[in-house]
Amino acid sequence: MGDTHVLCTASLEERVPPFVKGSGQGWVTAEYGMLPRSTSSRMRREAAMGKQGGRTVEIQRLIGRALRAGVDRNALGERQITVDCDVIQADGGTRCASITGGWVALRLAVNKLMKAGDIVTDPLISEVAAVSCGIYAGQAVLDLDYPEDSEAGVDGNFILRGDNALIEVQMSAEGSVFSRNQMTQLMDLAEKGVVELVAAQRAAVK
Amino acid sequence: MGDTHVLCTASLEERVPPFVKGSGQGWVTAEYGMLPRSTSSRMRREAAMGKQGGRTVEIQRLIGRALRAGVDRNALGERQITVDCDVIQADGGTRCASITGGWVALRLAVNKLMKAGDIVTDPLISEVAAVSCGIYAGQAVLDLDYPEDSEAGVDGNFILRGDNALIEVQMSAEGSVFSRNQMTQLMDLAEKGVVELVAAQRAAVK
Amino acid sequence: MGDTHVLCTASLEERVPPFVKGSGQGWVTAEYGMLPRSTSSRMRREAAMGKQGGRTVEIQRLIGRALRAGVDRNALGERQITVDCDVIQADGGTRCASITGGWVALRLAVNKLMKAGDIVTDPLISEVAAVSCGIYAGQAVLDLDYPEDSEAGVDGNFILRGDNALIEVQMSAEGSVFSRNQMTQLMDLAEKGVVELVAAQRAAVK
Amino acid sequence: MGDTHVLCTASLEERVPPFVKGSGQGWVTAEYGMLPRSTSSRMRREAAMGKQGGRTVEIQRLIGRALRAGVDRNALGERQITVDCDVIQADGGTRCASITGGWVALRLAVNKLMKAGDIVTDPLISEVAAVSCGIYAGQAVLDLDYPEDSEAGVDGNFILRGDNALIEVQMSAEGSVFSRNQMTQLMDLAEKGVVELVAAQRAAVK
Amino acid sequence: MGDTHVLCTASLEERVPPFVKGSGQGWVTAEYGMLPRSTSSRMRREAAMGKQGGRTVEIQRLIGRALRAGVDRNALGERQITVDCDVIQADGGTRCASITGGWVALRLAVNKLMKAGDIVTDPLISEVAAVSCGIYAGQAVLDLDYPEDSEAGVDGNFILRGDNALIEVQMSAEGSVFSRNQMTQLMDLAEKGVVELVAAQRAAVK
Amino acid sequence: MGDTHVLCTASLEERVPPFVKGSGQGWVTAEYGMLPRSTSSRMRREAAMGKQGGRTVEIQRLIGRALRAGVDRNALGERQITVDCDVIQADGGTRCASITGGWVALRLAVNKLMKAGDIVTDPLISEVAAVSCGIYAGQAVLDLDYPEDSEAGVDGNFILRGDNALIEVQMSAEGSVFSRNQMTQLMDLAEKGVVELVAAQRAAVK
Repeated sequence: MGDTHVLCTASLEERVPPFVKGSGQGWVTAEYGMLPRSTSSRMRREAAMGKQGGRTVEIQRLIGRALRAGVDRNALGERQITVDCDVIQADGGTRCASITGGWVALRLAVNKLMKAGDIVTDPLISEVAAVSCGIYAGQAVLDLDYPEDSEAGVDGNFILRGDNALIEVQMSAEGSVFSRNQMTQLMDLAEKGVVELVAAQRAAVK
Repeated sequence: MGDTHVLCTASLEERVPPFVKGSGQGWVTAEYGMLPRSTSSRMRREAAMGKQGGRTVEIQRLIGRALRAGVDRNALGERQITVDCDVIQADGGTRCASITGGWVALRLAVNKLMKAGDIVTDPLISEVAAVSCGIYAGQAVLDLDYPEDSEAGVDGNFILRGDNALIEVQMSAEGSVFSRNQMTQLMDLAEKGVVELVAAQRAAVK
Repeated sequence: MGDTHVLCTASLEERVPPFVKGSGQGWVTAEYGMLPRSTSSRMRREAAMGKQGGRTVEIQRLIGRALRAGVDRNALGERQITVDCDVIQADGGTRCASITGGWVALRLAVNKLMKAGDIVTDPLISEVAAVSCGIYAGQAVLDLDYPEDSEAGVDGNFILRGDNALIEVQMSAEGSVFSRNQMTQLMDLAEKGVVELVAAQRAAVK
Repeated sequence: MGDTHVLCTASLEERVPPFVKGSGQGWVTAEYGMLPRSTSSRMRREAAMGKQGGRTVEIQRLIGRALRAGVDRNALGERQITVDCDVIQADGGTRCASITGGWVALRLAVNKLMKAGDIVTDPLISEVAAVSCGIYAGQAVLDLDYPEDSEAGVDGNFILRGDNALIEVQMSAEGSVFSRNQMTQLMDLAEKGVVELVAAQRAAVK
Repeated sequence: MGDTHVLCTASLEERVPPFVKGSGQGWVTAEYGMLPRSTSSRMRREAAMGKQGGRTVEIQRLIGRALRAGVDRNALGERQITVDCDVIQADGGTRCASITGGWVALRLAVNKLMKAGDIVTDPLISEVAAVSCGIYAGQAVLDLDYPEDSEAGVDGNFILRGDNALIEVQMSAEGSVFSRNQMTQLMDLAEKGVVELVAAQRAAVK
Repeated sequence: MGDTHVLCTASLEERVPPFVKGSGQGWVTAEYGMLPRSTSSRMRREAAMGKQGGRTVEIQRLIGRALRAGVDRNALGERQITVDCDVIQADGGTRCASITGGWVALRLAVNKLMKAGDIVTDPLISEVAAVSCGIYAGQAVLDLDYPEDSEAGVDGNFILRGDNALIEVQMSAEGSVFSRNQMTQLMDLAEKGVVELVAAQRAAVK
């Protein structure tokens, strides 16, 4: 995704949040952050401001929700995996990169648990990957880089599984609108893009 | 939207946020809250917890973005309108009710400004309205009430303008997935629902 | 109380705060809030500011203390009732309206518990009601509305029980002083006002 | 006031809060704190908890309001005096000790300003002093010490000026009620007590 | 230490922080604060700002670490002593005064525990005392007062035990540097200063 | 420094903090952070906790102070450089790595300013570098790795300039003490280590 670099790690805990406790099911959650100078002009550090911004909260909830759609939580058992996605360098599409990279971290962590015999049935149903598409200069474009992203009137994030099932679709227009026809074009592009990403995920896991 | 009651107000300020200052354009923003006992079991009060939760932040950003898509910010001029949406009673669909009701408050506030001669050209392009749809018990259902909403595996929010243009589409599956075919069904339902809402908005403004 | 509207609800929990635990006694507490546009010019939302203001904290402590004076905490048993008072529209006297309305919510909640057989002896000793009085334009006035309230040099809140016992008396002068004679006049007015309020509470409960 | 020790200081600033700016009037405000070990068992430090508790906020608002009632804000001119009241050792009546001692600090600060010629007309109208009284073991008692205070069902704070005018009266019953007759007894006691305190203030200033 | 006044108290709790629990060892921790007007111009109150500043946090960690170096935590047993150091008046060297005075409070608290038979073996190994030294006007100076401290380019804090062992050495240059030779001079001065302080501590305990 | 990886960046602003404004001098400040999984067991994210911990605050103040000692603030002119040090992987010595790497980022930023002609005289006096040393298993050891660091009773950080001048010396013993002789040994080791680091900095800048 252009020059975007996101460090993704998965950390295991043998305990789950209160609302899951006793259900026999596991939980996958995510946290997201950007280094202050991951962008071309320095952003204020969220830890120093004393809270995570609205955009950060929105993105990390999205990452967690997306990854859980690829997980059989019964097969995972009562344990929690926290996926941290930290943006080292940002060039558009950081949330999609976080989901796609976060899944690789999750896959590696689960492989380790299975090798150790802690989990018997693979709890990962299929890959989870995400792409951004947008209408830029009247054209549907896959994987917007930062200059495109900031000018695109319409911007979509599409999260799919490796088996082609849809997990989440978000299309939104800042100061603009779009038609159903454009929606279909973006959706087509996204499906194509996810195929490539899933191939890259499989290569990375190997 | 079932038994959901949301109080929507619009407040005018003759100043704009720093990132708009000097642009000649106006700004529309929104805040969202739920009374602790708007739900059947009491929620903790956000003011007492010392911060707005992730869900609240996400929703109020969505409301603001949606309303701005119906506004010609040049025609509005350098002033800000804050739309407050406070949920008195919640029965599913509070974010859609907030957008739809928030637009009525915005329309009334702008009418007052135009009557007073402070604005000459109407800055409101077309109504903004939102519906939720979901897949419940295998069926595409319009305007989920709370019990349906909590069991629906797939849940969508569709924000449209009165001229049928799309502003925002969010479809997401918690612990589930969906197909492109289902996406089309939900989209069809949403378009039908918005027609009814726009009629109700026009009646309310009169 | 003029055009003041306060939504009062009572919520039951089968647990008490740590300092009451094991005493066999119950607890009644209150929370207070104002919607941002309950006043004629918009106030900032406390949840967005990240804390409850000093005035809010003072008022909700007062409401809780007042209501507890009408409760036999042994008869209530180890359970907690939280009374939420949310001001929808403010026109002076919101703290008195909250106490008086909060008692109605408390009465209804306790009636439900007694009907269900969860409580045998009625824990509510007598009604709790509150009025504001002040010296306005040299005259002692009952139930100040907002314009009177903001100009009154001396302002009192009187909380009484339906059996005429005094619970709390607060008389204060912002930028002014008062005499013992004026204090007596206000006290007389307050006693008269509370009689009317208690009648209204009884009617509401029926 | 028993073994209560409160350090009171007055600090001058040549600027006023925004809501006073341009009015030609001054402002007097107060802050209150307790050292963690001013009480016999250690309290948590408010700075470490990240906020001032409800009781602290209530008390410092009371101190400020009380002191302002003794000040001609026009004569003070556009400057602010902040009175800090820090409890070194607490044995009941810390809020009354803070007001009474705070007035001495305020008097000394104003004397200095007048000596330097910065203020011509004395802005202090009369002393401000406060006592607590309560009903303890059925008896009206002046200046409750800590053991009395914690058992007194009815507890009052009375703030008066040296010219006998009333500034603020607060009587409240935690888990109890009181009669108008008791209210009169407490008021009589308070007037007597304040006479002694004003004499002590005058001696301290000399 | 000049006109510096620090109130030091030690408070005992029969519980330890989680990371010590079950180890059989005790814990000594410290908290530090300055009254707003302990300095010649008023500082903002940390409780009102909603957090402890970086300097406060640094100092209280230092005090705790220093005192623990004089304690045999096995002999103390699983209990925690919290030393509060509150600066009433500041004239340079408040952190050193806090350590030196804090040790006296700790010694008195431990003596009481031993007298009561709760501790058998004395857990205090040797006194802990601290001095500041600096290079002021080219000269190595012991115990800088405030005017010296603010102009000294090089400033050191030396924490030693009564048996002459070193606990902590901090030498730092704000906008300046120093040589090893100067380091040696400061160290010599510090050792001399601590001898005097330990004598004063012993006198205070008696 | 072992397997420690710290990302260091320098960001320029053409404005200075209030306490420097109008002095004609520049300012260098630093911020420090650790990614949650930079350590072998995951730490909580500071942005999510709502504040920077005491250790973080202490370290970033140290980095800023250290770097300023290598800067001629008059030659820099009224501009601020913020050095961000973010730990990607931690294996002991992160504060020393941050200072040493931070200086390289500062050097590169200043070179760019000089090349652009914004600064004429080089404001960097000499390199700033830092090493940690400790007493481990009775031996003075340079550059402790994480296992050594956690067991070392005595631990020192030494910050020097390329011209051998001392900037800051911190030696501390957690649960232990040290002698002047050991202090000298550590100091000798540190001087040797800094020579190597300065060579590495010069190579990196080239």
